[in-house]
Amino acid sequence: MELNDFIRDVPDFPKPGIIFKDITTLLKDPDAFKEAVHQLCQPYRKQNIDQVVGIESRGFIFGGAMAMELDTGFIPMRKPGKLPAETEKEEYALEYGTDAIEVHRDAIQPEVKILVVDDLLATGGTAAASIRLVKKLGGSVIGAAFLIELCFLNGREKLGDVPVHTLIACESE
Amino acid sequence: MELNDFIRDVPDFPKPGIIFKDITTLLKDPDAFKEAVHQLCQPYRKQNIDQVVGIESRGFIFGGAMAMELDTGFIPMRKPGKLPAETEKEEYALEYGTDAIEVHRDAIQPEVKILVVDDLLATGGTAAASIRLVKKLGGSVIGAAFLIELCFLNGREKLGDVPVHTLIACESE
Repeated sequence: MELNDFIRDVPDFPKPGIIFKDITTLLKDPDAFKEAVHQLCQPYRKQNIDQVVGIESRGFIFGGAMAMELDTGFIPMRKPGKLPAETEKEEYALEYGTDAIEVHRDAIQPEVKILVVDDLLATGGTAAASIRLVKKLGGSVIGAAFLIELCFLNGREKLGDVPVHTLIACESE
Repeated sequence: MELNDFIRDVPDFPKPGIIFKDITTLLKDPDAFKEAVHQLCQPYRKQNIDQVVGIESRGFIFGGAMAMELDTGFIPMRKPGKLPAETEKEEYALEYGTDAIEVHRDAIQPEVKILVVDDLLATGGTAAASIRLVKKLGGSVIGAAFLIELCFLNGREKLGDVPVHTLIACESE
């Protein structure tokens, strides 16, 4: 099965000149969704992952499914103000300005093995901030998995020594 | 396993006087998360569901996991402006004003069997709007499943003839 065939290119979203990689056409197909989750989990089956960290919002879809598949817990990495208990926050740079991401302080126990998951690796800002947050709370990041990698944005370089696993590589804009 | 023991009450979130049902303490526990997903799926195993519709954002976590467990596709029901292709929108009433939810028009084929999923059934506004959207696009809503039901808000009544399945019933505020 060629997973890339299930991805739809939507031009000029969210703004003119951007080609958006729409994953909803993959998600709605039972076989493609299952195959994507299987392949995303493949490197981690014997790694004794404790929790999958899913990045809001589309990372929640794959993260929840992968947590089931890998018999782990799930930890949501959320936009500021969404989590009710005490949080730790990390900022990251956008094209103009900054944004931030938060996780519950008590979500990550020291020395737990964490897998960070999102649908898309673009510039890597959100994923890098998520990795910094997990490490700040004492967790060990075993890997970072993404359905799609926009290779021309070099996001992988921002993730330092964390092994990166992606299924669909987009080499050009 | 008593799933309710894994839910944390956080007082005064998101505003004073509200007791927030924090599910992150359940999600992070591998056994509790798996048990919750199993129980949420239980009534639907022989119902030939085609797609699970997950409501943004926490409905994505359970929805993704349940789609894996039930061998179905997944369809995201999102806040306005997030989906890249042509959408159908439904508004619903809030305490003050209205909000809306969207789905891709081509996500739901006529006569597909849909299961609507979210973490929490409160007033039922979002779930009812999601059900209306699925029906408007020709889908058949087989059921609606929620981890927690705030029974004193009577959200269940808003969902009409759709069978409702919930795991944790909160009888008082």
